[in-house]
Amino acid sequence: MVPTVEWKDGKVRLIDQTRLPREVVYIDYTDYRDVTGAIRDLVVRGAPAIGVTAALGVALGAQEIEADRHEEFLARLQPICDHLASARPTAVNLFWAIERMRKFAAAQNKLSLKDLKKALIEEAVRMGEEDIAVNRAMGAFGAEFVGDPATILTHCNAGSLATVGYGTALGVIYAAREQGKQVRVFADETRPILQGARLTAWELMEEGVDVTLITDNMAGHFMKQGMIDLVVVGTDRTVANGDVANKIGTYSVAVLAKEHGIPFYVAAPTSTIDFSIPTGDGIPIEERDPREVTCICNQLEIAPEGVKVKSPAFDVTPARYITAIITEKGAFRPADLHKLNDPEADPESFRLHPAGA
Amino acid sequence: MVPTVEWKDGKVRLIDQTRLPREVVYIDYTDYRDVTGAIRDLVVRGAPAIGVTAALGVALGAQEIEADRHEEFLARLQPICDHLASARPTAVNLFWAIERMRKFAAAQNKLSLKDLKKALIEEAVRMGEEDIAVNRAMGAFGAEFVGDPATILTHCNAGSLATVGYGTALGVIYAAREQGKQVRVFADETRPILQGARLTAWELMEEGVDVTLITDNMAGHFMKQGMIDLVVVGTDRTVANGDVANKIGTYSVAVLAKEHGIPFYVAAPTSTIDFSIPTGDGIPIEERDPREVTCICNQLEIAPEGVKVKSPAFDVTPARYITAIITEKGAFRPADLHKLNDPEADPESFRLHPAGA
Repeated sequence: MVPTVEWKDGKVRLIDQTRLPREVVYIDYTDYRDVTGAIRDLVVRGAPAIGVTAALGVALGAQEIEADRHEEFLARLQPICDHLASARPTAVNLFWAIERMRKFAAAQNKLSLKDLKKALIEEAVRMGEEDIAVNRAMGAFGAEFVGDPATILTHCNAGSLATVGYGTALGVIYAAREQGKQVRVFADETRPILQGARLTAWELMEEGVDVTLITDNMAGHFMKQGMIDLVVVGTDRTVANGDVANKIGTYSVAVLAKEHGIPFYVAAPTSTIDFSIPTGDGIPIEERDPREVTCICNQLEIAPEGVKVKSPAFDVTPARYITAIITEKGAFRPADLHKLNDPEADPESFRLHPAGA
Repeated sequence: MVPTVEWKDGKVRLIDQTRLPREVVYIDYTDYRDVTGAIRDLVVRGAPAIGVTAALGVALGAQEIEADRHEEFLARLQPICDHLASARPTAVNLFWAIERMRKFAAAQNKLSLKDLKKALIEEAVRMGEEDIAVNRAMGAFGAEFVGDPATILTHCNAGSLATVGYGTALGVIYAAREQGKQVRVFADETRPILQGARLTAWELMEEGVDVTLITDNMAGHFMKQGMIDLVVVGTDRTVANGDVANKIGTYSVAVLAKEHGIPFYVAAPTSTIDFSIPTGDGIPIEERDPREVTCICNQLEIAPEGVKVKSPAFDVTPARYITAIITEKGAFRPADLHKLNDPEADPESFRLHPAGA
C-alpha cells in the first residue's frame, strides 16, 4: 500500500489526496504551519491519518525550538500544538494525538534539548506504527462478521489512505480477504469531496479488490435489490453512548441498512472514541466551504451562481442504528462501549461475537 | 417561466437542459430523428416534457410523409412513432403521447393529407397546453398539503423544465406560494446528472423561491435536524398499486422520510400512471452510460480509469412509503389510485384531503 504519511529525512511527507486518483504526488513539509494547512485543505484526511500527521507536525515544530530549560521548551511547544489543533474540529484523533505528544514532552524532563527533540520524533513515528498494528487487530475482529462470499457497502474512505496504513473499515475488508473470503465492495462516491470515487475505488483497485462505484443516492436501491450483505464505515469521533460522527451521508446509509435488515458496522480504533462526550449531540460538526458543493474538485461549477448551500462535512449516526462498533480490543454493542473506559473491566467479558461463531 | 418545449415556425424548439444553468440555449429541430436523439441525450427530460416533445416529433415527422391514401399515411407514420418511442424506456408519457398521436391520426380519415398534417401539429400543441392546465390543477390540490410556513425537500427536477410549463412537484410549490404560503425548498443535487443543482436550483431562483442546495447524502441529516416539513417529488411512471418509479435516489429519500415521520408526496399527472402494470417490479429501469457517474457533466473525470460502475437512472418507491399521490383529479392514497382507472368511479368519493381540512 502507498504510504499516506511518514517522517522522511527530517520532513513530514504526505501523499496529496486532493490530486488522487489522477496524480500520485508526495509533498514534503518542513514547517509545522504548513502541516496544519495540509490537514485543513484535505491533502491528508481520515481521523487516524490526521492524528499521526498532527503528531509528526508537533515533532517537526519542536525541532525549531530554542530553550534553556524544560519548562521553557514546553511553553514554546504549546503554540505549536494549538496551531495544529486548529486545523479541523470534528475528528478527535487530532486532539488526542497532539495531547499525547504534549504529555510525552512534559514527562521527558531529564533529557537534553537535543535528545528531547529526537525523542519526540520517535514518539510520533511510534504512533504511526501503532496505528497500523491497531488497524490489523481491528480488521481481524471485524472480519469475523463478514460472510463468504460477501458484498460490502462502504461510504467515504476509511482505508489505508485514511490511516497510516491498512485502514479501518477497509482494513476489515482486507482482513476478510486474507482469511480467504470472497469479498466484493460497493463504494459510495461520497459527495461533496468524492472520497469514495477518488480514494476508495482507487485504493481497492490497487489492492485488487472487486469494487463497484455508485452515486450516494443509489445505495438504497441496491439494498432493496438484496445486493448488499453488510455495511462497514469508519468514524471521525465516537462518543460514550455509542453515537458515531462520520462523513456526511453515513447516517442516511445507516437508516437504509436498518430498513433492509442489513447489519451496519463501524470500525473505530479506540483513539477515535471520545468518552468525555455523553451523546452525539455534543460532537462539533464542521461546516465547510459551500464551494465544495457547487464546484466539484474546485474545477467544475455545477450550480447557479449565488445559490444558497449547506455543507456539513459530517453527520451523527445514533447508536441504535449500529450493529457493532469494531475496535482493536474487539467488537462491541454500542451500549457496551462505555465499559472500555473502565480500567477494571475486561473487554472479553462484553465482546460481541458473530452469530453462530 | 422559460419555455421548455414548443412548436415554433414549423420546427420543434427545445431549451438545451444539458447546458443549464451556465448557458440558456434553444435548439430548433427540423428532423424527427434528431428529436429522438434530443430525448435520449437529455436535451429535454422529465416525463411530461418528454411526452409532449415526442408528440411534436410525431407531428414534425408527419410533415415529410407523402401518401395518396389514409392507410398509406398511417403506415408511413408508424416507423416515425417507433423511432421516437425508442429514445428512453422508463417514462411512460413517451409511449402515451406517441400512442395518442397515432390514434388521432387514425381517427382523422376524412381529412386531406394537407389538413391531416396540420391537425397533427394542432393536436401536439394542444397536448402541451393541456400539460400546463393539468399541472396547475395538480398544484392546487397538492398545495392543500403544504403548511405555512413550510420547508419542502425535493429530488431531481419536476419543475417547469420537466414539463411544458409550471411543473409537477415544483408546481405544488408554486401553487402553495400563490396561496400566500411561505415556502422554502431544499433541493437535492441529484447525481449523476445533477438535475437538482443545475435545473431545480436555477428554476427556483429564477422564480424567486427560497432554495438551498444540498448533496443527496445530506437529506437524512437535515430531516433528523427537524428542518424538513414534507417531501414532494415527481414520477416517470406510477403503476396500478401505487408504486412509483422516479429519478434514482427517490427511494432513499422516501425511506428517510418514513423514518422521520415526514410526509412524502408524489406529483403524478394521470398521463404518468400506467394501469397496465400491477406493481413496480414490472417497470423497466433504464441503465445509463457509466460515464455519467465517472465523468461529471461529461467534463470532469472523478474516478479511476476502468472502475466498475452501476448507473441505474431510476428506482422504484413502493406505495407503502407514499403519503399521497397528487394528480390533476385530486390527491389519493396509493392504494386507491387504481380506482381512477374505473370510468364509473367518482374521484371525489375517494379523494384524500389534508388532516384538519
